[in-house]
Amino acid sequence: MTYQPPVRDHAFILRDVLDIDQHGALPSFADAPFETVEQILEAAAQFTGEVLAPLNSVGDKQGCVWNKDFTVKTPDGFKEAYKQLCEGGWTGLGSDPAYGGQGLPHVVNLSFSEMSSSANMAFSMYPGLAHGAYSAIHTGGSDAQKQTYLPKMISGEWTGTMNLTEPHCGTDLGLLRTKAVPEADGSYRITGQKIWISAGEHDMSDNIVHLVLARIEGAPAGVKGISLFIVPKFLPKADGSVGERNEGVKCVGLEEKMGIHGNATCVMQYEDAKGWLIGEENSGLKLMFVMMNEARLGVGLQGIAQAEAAYQAAAAFAKDRLQGRSLTGPKNPDGPADPIIVHPDVRRMLLESKALIEGGRAFLFWTALHGDLAHHHPDEAVRAKAEDYMGLMTPVLKGYLTDKGFKICSDAMQVHGGSGFTEHFPASQYLRDVRIALIYEGTNGIQALDLVGRKLASKGGRGVMTFFQEIDQFIGENDGDAELKPFVDALAGVKAQLQDGTMWLMQNGLQNPDNAGAASTDYMHLFGLTGLAYMWCLMVKAANAKIAAGSTDPFFTTKVVTARYFIERILPDAGAHLAKLKTGSETLMALPAEAF
Amino acid sequence: MTYQPPVRDHAFILRDVLDIDQHGALPSFADAPFETVEQILEAAAQFTGEVLAPLNSVGDKQGCVWNKDFTVKTPDGFKEAYKQLCEGGWTGLGSDPAYGGQGLPHVVNLSFSEMSSSANMAFSMYPGLAHGAYSAIHTGGSDAQKQTYLPKMISGEWTGTMNLTEPHCGTDLGLLRTKAVPEADGSYRITGQKIWISAGEHDMSDNIVHLVLARIEGAPAGVKGISLFIVPKFLPKADGSVGERNEGVKCVGLEEKMGIHGNATCVMQYEDAKGWLIGEENSGLKLMFVMMNEARLGVGLQGIAQAEAAYQAAAAFAKDRLQGRSLTGPKNPDGPADPIIVHPDVRRMLLESKALIEGGRAFLFWTALHGDLAHHHPDEAVRAKAEDYMGLMTPVLKGYLTDKGFKICSDAMQVHGGSGFTEHFPASQYLRDVRIALIYEGTNGIQALDLVGRKLASKGGRGVMTFFQEIDQFIGENDGDAELKPFVDALAGVKAQLQDGTMWLMQNGLQNPDNAGAASTDYMHLFGLTGLAYMWCLMVKAANAKIAAGSTDPFFTTKVVTARYFIERILPDAGAHLAKLKTGSETLMALPAEAF
Repeated sequence: MTYQPPVRDHAFILRDVLDIDQHGALPSFADAPFETVEQILEAAAQFTGEVLAPLNSVGDKQGCVWNKDFTVKTPDGFKEAYKQLCEGGWTGLGSDPAYGGQGLPHVVNLSFSEMSSSANMAFSMYPGLAHGAYSAIHTGGSDAQKQTYLPKMISGEWTGTMNLTEPHCGTDLGLLRTKAVPEADGSYRITGQKIWISAGEHDMSDNIVHLVLARIEGAPAGVKGISLFIVPKFLPKADGSVGERNEGVKCVGLEEKMGIHGNATCVMQYEDAKGWLIGEENSGLKLMFVMMNEARLGVGLQGIAQAEAAYQAAAAFAKDRLQGRSLTGPKNPDGPADPIIVHPDVRRMLLESKALIEGGRAFLFWTALHGDLAHHHPDEAVRAKAEDYMGLMTPVLKGYLTDKGFKICSDAMQVHGGSGFTEHFPASQYLRDVRIALIYEGTNGIQALDLVGRKLASKGGRGVMTFFQEIDQFIGENDGDAELKPFVDALAGVKAQLQDGTMWLMQNGLQNPDNAGAASTDYMHLFGLTGLAYMWCLMVKAANAKIAAGSTDPFFTTKVVTARYFIERILPDAGAHLAKLKTGSETLMALPAEAF
Repeated sequence: MTYQPPVRDHAFILRDVLDIDQHGALPSFADAPFETVEQILEAAAQFTGEVLAPLNSVGDKQGCVWNKDFTVKTPDGFKEAYKQLCEGGWTGLGSDPAYGGQGLPHVVNLSFSEMSSSANMAFSMYPGLAHGAYSAIHTGGSDAQKQTYLPKMISGEWTGTMNLTEPHCGTDLGLLRTKAVPEADGSYRITGQKIWISAGEHDMSDNIVHLVLARIEGAPAGVKGISLFIVPKFLPKADGSVGERNEGVKCVGLEEKMGIHGNATCVMQYEDAKGWLIGEENSGLKLMFVMMNEARLGVGLQGIAQAEAAYQAAAAFAKDRLQGRSLTGPKNPDGPADPIIVHPDVRRMLLESKALIEGGRAFLFWTALHGDLAHHHPDEAVRAKAEDYMGLMTPVLKGYLTDKGFKICSDAMQVHGGSGFTEHFPASQYLRDVRIALIYEGTNGIQALDLVGRKLASKGGRGVMTFFQEIDQFIGENDGDAELKPFVDALAGVKAQLQDGTMWLMQNGLQNPDNAGAASTDYMHLFGLTGLAYMWCLMVKAANAKIAAGSTDPFFTTKVVTARYFIERILPDAGAHLAKLKTGSETLMALPAEAF
């Protein structure tokens, strides 16, 4: 079965759970009443399902090909699909109307991104990276830079990249060596090697705008001496069109990797490449984090997106594959065997996936909506709260949802049995593709450390306290709702555990930072569970409202059953995470390195 | 870093924990005092580390090649390595001396198998499958069949395969269609297609002995009409040498798959192929399970074996990669950064792996030793108990250890960061290779069902009750040991949880079999945790004895710290598994198939 974009689920979250129309007075929402959004979702589903999804396996099997003239050929069909992507206006969905974008809310763009990533993760990374580069220029570029680059990037004529990693320096950017030497005309000459540059070279756009971290000669050591540069593949002419080749920038090879074969992961060589400083000298890292934070949310999304596609394949297989009989007597007595979906353990894997995907998607959309509020809401207090939430939730979404996304893709393979391990079925590709999401844009361990080390303590812990208050308020407001009670009780339980873990961190993490590091991953998962428990309460409440209003649509009862699964069979992990995180760092740090 | 066989760890289990010399009076142990075994381990380490390990990546990158003349070429170096395997006598290590085998204890053979599988899983499957076929013929073959096949299979001149799966029939063998038509000379003509036949065709041995499940014309439907046949690639001549080609058996293609590329996964076409019945008519399944049970233990072993190799690569990377600084101040102040092993979260992944691998290995060896006792012990009660344990533990070892093995290989990739996702480092291959272990020889879901549906209730639950008694006795005997107390207490805790879960199953699984199915995977994991907790107690006791006797070897203190990690950070999962399994099947079965 090929991927079917889950339009109904997206609509349910946007309309029934988040009620985006309540923000209709805000810019960007004004032009996107839910009715319009629904049409966009339908069109997105058509494009991603019919154009991108059929190319997913092609991309995996063919991969990208590097040529000796430093060009890269993308898999068959990618170039044409990219053209359609641009013509459909999908590259500028959430971008600034001042430069030709459509200015839709981020949360709507996210919906398209999920479908696009489910349909074809490797493909969707090309426009994904471009959007990150767009955001950095939009935030930190000069007016002239914005005029030169943004319209072309919004239209998709030009794509973009992020150049951080060097062979000896990944997480620890302070070690980076790429040099920038100022020229008399105000430009710089960039020299160094960057690796793992996604979409670094390809044949789909007229130009590629590389954003490159480098150190200006004489800059301070470490992260305080890093600046960000725009290094286009072709130098823009005064009229904005593509000019001569920037000879100093070349893709000198592609990485051979486990998955996302359709995306070109490039080794980029810069040798006196012409570049221009973007933003202030030595403040490149701050701008890079504009891209990075957006990218992190996008990577959490990839976890859910691959999980959704893999789950769909597994569910279809489980309904189709006849093998064995139900333990409680034949359910397909006229057939040679029952479909394997009759087995409780197969359903366990499917429902586990469903509960995590739908809860995770809601958590992503809920957070992205706060991103929109942070940009557009007139009330400063609302903006500040939304900003806090964005900071706090981003590492949780990236780390927790990709950890779970990988598990879901693995379970989808398991449902397929032996077929899943062969490359005739899609399960292997989903599993191989999604695995990178646990690593790039900061490994999940780095996300957990960002959460406990930075985000939690930021502004005196204001973000997490506000979140606890919001949950308490929800519990208070819904305490009398008998239908909702089991879900509210479960939320109260896990929230108390998260609070307990937070307290433990406050008391033990400051006195010994290794305690914070030791607790970080379990804390991140406990946070993820709490977030999803809250989302499931919101979804059950919305579904119950429909049922109470007379709906007999099984869509709503299914939501309630899935929520019950979440409480019964996923939430018990919270206690284990809390117990583990409280054991501290002593045992972890007891052994010398040689003992490993 | 290439794989280093962990001889010291194997020796510790065989000598200090299991004390195999106490069984010196038994056949097979008589010729294998620990001193001799240690020499075998050293030689095994040399062969697997120096000959097999360097071919692991070659096998992955080249894969096997199918030719139009129905032959299969194995990767460069495999054929020569196989020759060395035979010359070293490794193919007959645990086989019957009556047919030229060395007759060593199964537990010693297992030690070699682990090293072989760690070094090169795809390669080690060729002799592994052959040994399964050897066991079936040894158990069920006529004298003439044994004389014809066993010596050649023990010497490695001939290999063997298991032919179960057909396109429409995997787990549910009752559906199988391959036909056997009796001939006047007492042989049969076999016709049908078998898929996913590991080592079904290759260029390393003079002959391939296929064991094929088929249905004799007129046999009853379902599993009661299945017989087992010997279908050799070349027909043996009267003098035992290789005769004419059995023209009706052909490999018509290879499966393209996610991992184990160096092993030929064959589509086998049988068209009036000549075969001979082995064992009784219509009792083929019973004989197949001789192979299957051995294979299942071997697959559990593969989980640990790949995990060990992946862990070693991750630990080496973590000690080597300089990136960032320790949270408690620089640990490598003269270098540009600290090795990433200073970070608690990196250590968490490494210690989690170490605790599971070492505990899992002990559990495997402990069970395999019971296999030896079941065969050789003069006391019938000891044999019966050992037989019970073999039956009970096999699904736990297969399911639990491969689930954990996959997680460990994934964590090993995670420790590598971006490097791990590239094919320049070994992490990807370990992860891709190990994934099949969760599927073949019965998916892990099938193992869990076998455990709760068959093994637990077998002989009135005698096996599990004996296991509980053994643990209680251990607890009673060691209650006064202050050093051991935290470990004994933890064991008592998880054993009580397993007992609780067992009771729940007894009460709820019989009244509604779906409850058993719904609880099965969580129960299997709870059982695995209990087994490992017991093993860690045994290992800490052995290590403490060495320390008390004056040893200052860090090997022993490291064991105690690793055990502490197991208790603090792995055992808390037991409570979550118990809570989940007790929720029963209601939510799982609530939705119609269309809701997925």
